[in-house]
Order: sequence, then structure tokens, then C-alpha cells
Amino acid sequence: MKAEFEKIKELLKSAKSAVIAAHIDPDGDTIGSMLALGMMLEQKGISVTLYCADLNPKIYKFLPNADKIRRELPTNAHYDLGFAVDASDATRIGNRIDLKKISGAVINIDHHPDNSQYGDVNYVAKVSSVAELIFDLGKYLKIKMDKNIADCLYTAMITDTGNFRYENTNVKTFMIAAELLKAGVNTHELTTRIYDNKSIPSIKISARALANIKFTPDHKIAWTAVTDDMMRETKAEGEDLIGIVDRLRSIEGVEVAVFFREKEGEVKINFRSKDRINVSEIARRFGGGGHIKAAGAVVKGELAKVEDAVVSEAIKYLKAASYLV
Amino acid sequence: MKAEFEKIKELLKSAKSAVIAAHIDPDGDTIGSMLALGMMLEQKGISVTLYCADLNPKIYKFLPNADKIRRELPTNAHYDLGFAVDASDATRIGNRIDLKKISGAVINIDHHPDNSQYGDVNYVAKVSSVAELIFDLGKYLKIKMDKNIADCLYTAMITDTGNFRYENTNVKTFMIAAELLKAGVNTHELTTRIYDNKSIPSIKISARALANIKFTPDHKIAWTAVTDDMMRETKAEGEDLIGIVDRLRSIEGVEVAVFFREKEGEVKINFRSKDRINVSEIARRFGGGGHIKAAGAVVKGELAKVEDAVVSEAIKYLKAASYLV
Repeated sequence: MKAEFEKIKELLKSAKSAVIAAHIDPDGDTIGSMLALGMMLEQKGISVTLYCADLNPKIYKFLPNADKIRRELPTNAHYDLGFAVDASDATRIGNRIDLKKISGAVINIDHHPDNSQYGDVNYVAKVSSVAELIFDLGKYLKIKMDKNIADCLYTAMITDTGNFRYENTNVKTFMIAAELLKAGVNTHELTTRIYDNKSIPSIKISARALANIKFTPDHKIAWTAVTDDMMRETKAEGEDLIGIVDRLRSIEGVEVAVFFREKEGEVKINFRSKDRINVSEIARRFGGGGHIKAAGAVVKGELAKVEDAVVSEAIKYLKAASYLV
Repeated sequence: MKAEFEKIKELLKSAKSAVIAAHIDPDGDTIGSMLALGMMLEQKGISVTLYCADLNPKIYKFLPNADKIRRELPTNAHYDLGFAVDASDATRIGNRIDLKKISGAVINIDHHPDNSQYGDVNYVAKVSSVAELIFDLGKYLKIKMDKNIADCLYTAMITDTGNFRYENTNVKTFMIAAELLKAGVNTHELTTRIYDNKSIPSIKISARALANIKFTPDHKIAWTAVTDDMMRETKAEGEDLIGIVDRLRSIEGVEVAVFFREKEGEVKINFRSKDRINVSEIARRFGGGGHIKAAGAVVKGELAKVEDAVVSEAIKYLKAASYLV
């Protein structure tokens, strides 16, 4: 990464302004990395504009400078530098702005293996979170790591590693976590804000969904469904459903968890697997896709019929997989 | 700790046998630390007996050597060394054995601030988990850190830090985590085994409990109750209730969470607080006690009446606390 660091350092020398763009449907890594990078650039005397086409999720609103994130940029705005963080492609920041047009040089900082190398500088590496890349860049640029920057990077890191639980968690993740704690991060405070801030509707809808779990006779597949009526009765919104499918997966013996969400004549399906089952292949049979352990699809039709069809397909898939080693 | 390390090293030189005792009602820290220490002593050529008066919880059964833990020791058994891990007092290992009687020297390894210094060697320090102490001792003794030892220490560490979420998590915790990953720990595999292994009854009883949450009008106190009937209907056991009170606390705006468990004419009460409320003071008013953020009590009486009394007291306590800064 030495070459990329050099290029970025050179560009920063003459830059007076920069825009940093997060990806649409933002998560903690893109928001935290954007905010941390913003504070780093400000230390270098650069005027920073923070941009995200979508609303910042409520749980990240407490982060320093989160209130400065803008959903619109002034017409004809132009910046010396245009950063994209955690965006595998130029379009991932939404189609309302084009970094190439509104900035003198595009710097693409990302960790997705399928990154399209759309920047003038592409600082792309396969690490657990973009926060790790920002941390390393900060070290190279001799940025003073303060509590504000550290809080943003730590939030970004735990978002993308499931608080150090996902497979991408590695030695370096923990080494950086240690550094961020040295800079003042309080893990209890931060994780309480992020994880212990559930809405009442989210608890209610989750209780309803979990009270109705169904299992195949061998308990390897668990599923549940949330209907429009249940959403209305519990006053739940879309983001209140996050985590239900993970709770299904967390059950002993369950290999595949499926969550169905009825919405206006369509059924949104979320798949999760625990170990060896590639749920993206099941999702693909319903026109969807995703990763090995997390996938999704949207199917038109009646909930009960879709449930039947998907569960039958999952049973078939597990049966076939059981012949493999 | 240099002096204690020296003493332990000296004792190990001439020792041929050792018993290691975990505390009763064992958790991941006492079990993981015991197993890790056992393997370390075996590297030094010492024959090791692992003892725990209570059954090892199911979730820790996968750990290396967990099947060697004994609930009984042979009559007249005698060991050169007797270790207690994570036991603040000699009686915490249960009253069926007395380390002083059955061993040549007692080595007390613990991190509780109220440790009674009952050993011939007391290796006691205020760290997040006993695993940290075992790790440091292992380094001093030049133990080869292998994946088995590392898995045990990692399990112990995350148990006592809430997977790096509690306030005791610090720079050193993460530095050690990094070392354990270097030795082969797979965080995803390990945490899946520990956290994603919930029984079906535990999911069902939790869904029932969460469907019935009650709140004070300001939503600062949340509570729910589990009755004998609910336990029977969901086939749940005591350990299936773990975590319900934490889910109550995780609700936005909730300051105090209370979980009531009806059991044969008594009501077991669990308190949790999020930030500033000292729930041990509320618990004490009902003859219980505990820590600032986690406390409990057992009260005789009818569930509905106990609920009323406890919630009224909690409201009063919060009102009084709101006058303080």
C-alpha cells in the first residue's frame, strides 16, 4: 500500500477541499470510516464535506460530526479531492453525485474483493473493515489519534466484524482495537449505544416472530414470518426486523434460518446459514443472491405458498448437501 | 507479580501432581482458565486432576479436556499442588473438598477484589478475567501456547468481558486476544459454539417473556415475569432464562430492567441497569444484593404482589436518583 499512501499524501499537500462519500443504505463501517477520515483531513487543514445519499441510521447519530453529514451537495459544488469509503463501485454512493465530475481526483478506499478500481487512486485491500484502512492511512500521515477519531473507527470495526465475531476478525483487528482503546475508546459505552438501543416495536415484533418459529422435523431448518398485520399491531418499521433471522440461526442444531417478510403482495426472504450450507444457492433459485452465510430474495405471491416453496427447496438443498463432504 | 511467579515456578519444579479446582456454579472463565492451566502444567510434566463440584455448563463441553473434569475426587487423594481458579474464597470451590488438606501447597489465582488471600501463594490481581492471569503466568513459565490452550483462554476472556463489551475490557485484553489469535483461535467458530447454541425452549420462553414486557409510563423501567406454567409449557429450564433481563435492558430509554421468575411460592428477581442507577440498592431493599449494574433478590409471596412492590420501589429509587447529578 506504500505507493497508494504516497499518492494520497501528495494529493493532500495541495488540496484545500474534499468531499467524502459513504455508500447508500449506510452501515457503521461506511459512516464511521467517513467521519474518521473527515477529522483526519481536517487535521491536515483541508475543508471537508461529508456526503451520504441516504439517511444515517439512528444508532450512529451519536458519533462525532454525524450531524454534519449532508444528503445533498450544492449545485456546481467542486472539491479538490473526492473520497469514496466502503464503495465497491462508483455508483454505490448513489446516482445523485458523480465523484469524477465534482472533484479534481477520486480516491477509492475500500475492502470489497470485487472493487471496480474506479478511482484515480485505489486504496483497496482485503481487510475486515474500511476502518482498518483508514487507521493505517492515519498512521502513515502521522495523524494525531484522538478519542473522536478512535470512537468512529472502533464503531466501524465492530460493525463489520460483528463485534469481533465474524470470520474476518484477525490478529490485526485486535491490535488496532488495542490502539483505539489507548486513544480513549470506552468499549462499554460505545457498544451500549450501538447494541442496547433497541426500539420497543423491535422487541415486540421480534417476540411475535420468535413465538411462531417453525422447524423441519430434524430441526436443521428454522423459519418464521412477519406479516403486514403484525407490523401494524406492533408499530414496527423495516429496521426493527434486523436481527430476527440471526436469532433463528443462533438456535442449537439449526443449519439454515429463513425469515419471511410479507409486504404488499411480495415476500422478502432472508437466509442465514451457520456452517457449511451455501444459502446464496437457495436464494438464487428464487431470483435472489448473496453470500455463503447470508443471502436474500424477493418473491411475488402469497406468504403461505412462498414459505412452503422456499422451505421445500431448502430441504432439498440440505439433503443434496448432506451427500457431500 | 514477579514474586508470585517465582514462587509458583519454584513449586512446579518439584511437583509431580496437581489438582485444579474451579468454582461452583461454574462460568466460562473458571472452566477455561482451569483447562488452560491444566494443559500448561502438563507441559511441565505434572499429572493434573481437574475438579469442579458442579456440572460444567453444556456450552463449554466442547473445550479441550472438558470431558476430564471430575465432580468427585478419590477418598484420601493427595496432590503436591492445589490450585483454585477464579475463587474469591476457599469455600467457592464447594465444601466437598478442602484444598489445604488435600494438597501440599495451595495456589490461589483470582481477580476478585474481595479475595480472601487463602493460598500459600496468592496470585491475585484486578484484571478482566482470570484467563489474563493464566496467560501471563504461561508466558513467564515459557509455556508453548498452542491452539488448545488459546481456545480455552479466549473462551474464558470473552465470558468475563461479555465478548469485549463490559467495562473491564481494556488495552491488555485486546493485546492478549491478538496473541491468542496468533496461536490459532478462530473467533467465529468459537463464538458460534458459545453464543449460537441456544436451546429451542430458551428461544420460546424468551419470546413469551418479551411479548409481555411492561413499562413505566416514562419507559425508564421495563420488566417481565416468567411463571411456573410458562416454564412447563415451553419445557424451559433455569439456564434457558439467561439473557432475558439483558434484552430488557437493551431497549432504548430503559434505565432499569427487572426480571421476575415465579418458582414454587418464591419469586426470584434479577435487576440490571444501563448507566447510572445502582440496582444493588434496590435489591438490598428486598433482602438481596449484587453489583451496581447487576443485582438480585429472592422474595416469598405472590408474583403479582412482588412485581408491584418491586416496581414501586424502583420508581421511588429512580425518582430519588434523578435529584442527584
